[in-house]
Amino acid sequence: MAKEKKFVEAITSMDEDFAQWYTDVVKKAELIAYSSVKGCMIIRPNGYAIWENIQAELDRRFKETGVENVYMPMFIPESLLQREKDHVEGFAPEVAWVTHGGLEPLQERMCVRPTSETLFCDFYKDIIQSYRDLPKLYNQWCSVVRWEKETRPFLRSREFLWQEGHTIHATAEEAEERTQQMLNLYADFCEDFLAMPVIRGKKTEKEKFAGAEATYTIEALMHDGKALQSGTSHNFGDGFAKAFGIQYTDKENKLQYGFQTSWGMTTRLIGAVIMVHGDSDGLVLPPRVAPVQVMIIPIRQQQEGVLDKVNELKARLSDYRVKVDDSDKSPGWKFSEQEVKGIPLRIEIGPKDIEANQAVIVRRDTREKITVSLDDIETEIGRVLETMQKEMFERAKAHRDAHTTVALDYDEFKDAVANKPGFIKAMWCGDRACEDKIKEETTATSRCMPFAQEKLSDKCVCCGKPAKAMVYWGKAY
Amino acid sequence: MAKEKKFVEAITSMDEDFAQWYTDVVKKAELIAYSSVKGCMIIRPNGYAIWENIQAELDRRFKETGVENVYMPMFIPESLLQREKDHVEGFAPEVAWVTHGGLEPLQERMCVRPTSETLFCDFYKDIIQSYRDLPKLYNQWCSVVRWEKETRPFLRSREFLWQEGHTIHATAEEAEERTQQMLNLYADFCEDFLAMPVIRGKKTEKEKFAGAEATYTIEALMHDGKALQSGTSHNFGDGFAKAFGIQYTDKENKLQYGFQTSWGMTTRLIGAVIMVHGDSDGLVLPPRVAPVQVMIIPIRQQQEGVLDKVNELKARLSDYRVKVDDSDKSPGWKFSEQEVKGIPLRIEIGPKDIEANQAVIVRRDTREKITVSLDDIETEIGRVLETMQKEMFERAKAHRDAHTTVALDYDEFKDAVANKPGFIKAMWCGDRACEDKIKEETTATSRCMPFAQEKLSDKCVCCGKPAKAMVYWGKAY
Repeated sequence: MAKEKKFVEAITSMDEDFAQWYTDVVKKAELIAYSSVKGCMIIRPNGYAIWENIQAELDRRFKETGVENVYMPMFIPESLLQREKDHVEGFAPEVAWVTHGGLEPLQERMCVRPTSETLFCDFYKDIIQSYRDLPKLYNQWCSVVRWEKETRPFLRSREFLWQEGHTIHATAEEAEERTQQMLNLYADFCEDFLAMPVIRGKKTEKEKFAGAEATYTIEALMHDGKALQSGTSHNFGDGFAKAFGIQYTDKENKLQYGFQTSWGMTTRLIGAVIMVHGDSDGLVLPPRVAPVQVMIIPIRQQQEGVLDKVNELKARLSDYRVKVDDSDKSPGWKFSEQEVKGIPLRIEIGPKDIEANQAVIVRRDTREKITVSLDDIETEIGRVLETMQKEMFERAKAHRDAHTTVALDYDEFKDAVANKPGFIKAMWCGDRACEDKIKEETTATSRCMPFAQEKLSDKCVCCGKPAKAMVYWGKAY
Repeated sequence: MAKEKKFVEAITSMDEDFAQWYTDVVKKAELIAYSSVKGCMIIRPNGYAIWENIQAELDRRFKETGVENVYMPMFIPESLLQREKDHVEGFAPEVAWVTHGGLEPLQERMCVRPTSETLFCDFYKDIIQSYRDLPKLYNQWCSVVRWEKETRPFLRSREFLWQEGHTIHATAEEAEERTQQMLNLYADFCEDFLAMPVIRGKKTEKEKFAGAEATYTIEALMHDGKALQSGTSHNFGDGFAKAFGIQYTDKENKLQYGFQTSWGMTTRLIGAVIMVHGDSDGLVLPPRVAPVQVMIIPIRQQQEGVLDKVNELKARLSDYRVKVDDSDKSPGWKFSEQEVKGIPLRIEIGPKDIEANQAVIVRRDTREKITVSLDDIETEIGRVLETMQKEMFERAKAHRDAHTTVALDYDEFKDAVANKPGFIKAMWCGDRACEDKIKEETTATSRCMPFAQEKLSDKCVCCGKPAKAMVYWGKAY
């Protein structure tokens, strides 16, 4: 009975309490479990399978651009972390320190990597001598640790999974090009694969990565109107190379410093998918990222011939990721399970359908029921999955556009923050003081200066001085 | 010039100094680099690509048996590690301890996982209530840390990559079946995919895993006659379940303890491949695991039409993992690079070959040169790769058999250890005292009691008392 109860318990309404809705979905869809390690989560099979699909697709896209995978140690000696001034200031307050190995205290303590720029620099120094050794285009898939005070599944946890790309180039131009290339790769991936529209732009000085010359970001809008930074790409210029002494001899036999980038995406993307696409009944997964795309649910499965037909159907649909639920639960129960887990389509098929040579396809997002002939079902499933992927993107984009407000002066800005959840587009003078004031007074932060700039007015929304850039602002996760 | 020098430097002869040969190969094939973190290695693209192939193949085989991937935290609170007595005794002396998070000392210190049984137990306790929840068949791909004093690339390092499978079952029989199933999966994988013959067997009480009722192992023989434990599978019985209170209600509504297994393979397999197949010129990769299977090296590539033909050939060979080396190095230089990296085949093709509508295929293992018509080259490449995979296995097996000695008494045993590098098959009474004595006096350890038992004599090779089992003994990595 304890098990039965789980599914009939309602998921908290997303309009009443979005945070609780999120937690309910994450748990009921069995994406994570809490562990005895405070602030760290267990990623369960349903959650990890989403991550595997994200990994496979990103990895393929990285490799198409010449990136190679490597693996660096998970520990960073304290002296190595301290080599680049801004970087250590940014990360030292939130790392976990290893002080003992076995029964002995370490001579020098080491942190568990919060990110691996310093390790890559140390490696570059050994392997780069000449311009012929450049560029190096590396990536690693691993977990990192940041000792956060407040944690939430997928969105912010003390340990999380990610990929971190690290490249080094002969020139500043090449590094800048790679930084933007990877940001655009991230954006295309989010839009094509996760059906999640993003704003591409540059972070302000205040918000950029510790040690970077420039940080680019993609920002997505969640269903509740809060922004989520979904991927970042950093241009380090030659700052790290100077701190670590990474030099190469150029074609004229002169010593030059290398120019570096790094870029990362994390399991946070799973949180984004939940909060962009989920609904009152649970998770809704875009077909391309869904571990199971189609669940076949037999009706009156005990009746002769039904399960045979269902298995035959499954075999015919081998181009898709299909499962059959032939457990002894009731069909209604199975529908609820498929819905809470966000499986894009279900196929209902029973004796009457078989007699009529048809089946019923039900879309998870719209609940639309489509009766299709069994003769055409392979192509129909493909068509419906494609349509669903496209419409999920369009719906998320329409939601974002409907939740983006232009503010021309500070009163409008404050009103928008207070009453209109979503992005706020407003002009900015470029001064840190205005950014700080806005954050303090409204809790909205600058999300990015989008690549697609618009001139909304001549004046900074905060101080009224001449504006330098349009900025997307918002409350953020 | 520094770069040129690297390749012409000879690799140390494997007969003179096998350990130095190994280090030379690992470095010249660019599999790893040393890092600033003592005892931890950097896995470079050539090494990591081998691991990616191992991962993909193992992961596919695991999933075929119903295993699902998950991800558990990398930290284990000290109190959790201590819950199972034998387990903590086995691991506590060699773990790394985290004592501070950010600027604060932790209330309870945590170790970086050396293995994750305790975390899985803690998880099972929350998710298993009824027999309907069993079995759970989990696996994770991650890195683990063991604070080793002596380290060697791939073979023993403070951090290494692995997979750890963890399952829990309703009955002891099911757990035993899964333990052996995974050991056999490992053995088949090593033989089919890595062309590496292995002995399948059971560890003695002395050599079993900390906390296990039984440990099964596969043992491979390296070229120098030393054994390498290449994968293990453990049956925990209900020991962990009792220590952690993991109980379920069975069909009769009675409370029962669960029965658990775990099984793991690591980046050590890359070391095994090097030491089983490598030769005086470097690495030799079996075709199935090789990241690049065929390197096409054009001859007189500046001559018109050569590179066109080469690219056409590459396109035709898209069923295989093929690269073209059209850099401005000399062909001889390119041959050396391909050889040291262990790429199974090279295709040499120049103007004369093109005129004769042929190419020359050279096998890395035997140096056999095969002239083939360009008309049949797709099938020929497939055939040669298959033959090479098969012959590499057979050669390794013949080497192992030729380096396996039967010892009927202790003098023969000591003579074999001293003069005949390889496995020693000998009978054993089952007493720990004999095992300890043999280890102390000869440095040979019991590798396993093979599933395929033979009765060599009635008497223990050491004490002469009645024998209980035949054991494979050897010096080991």
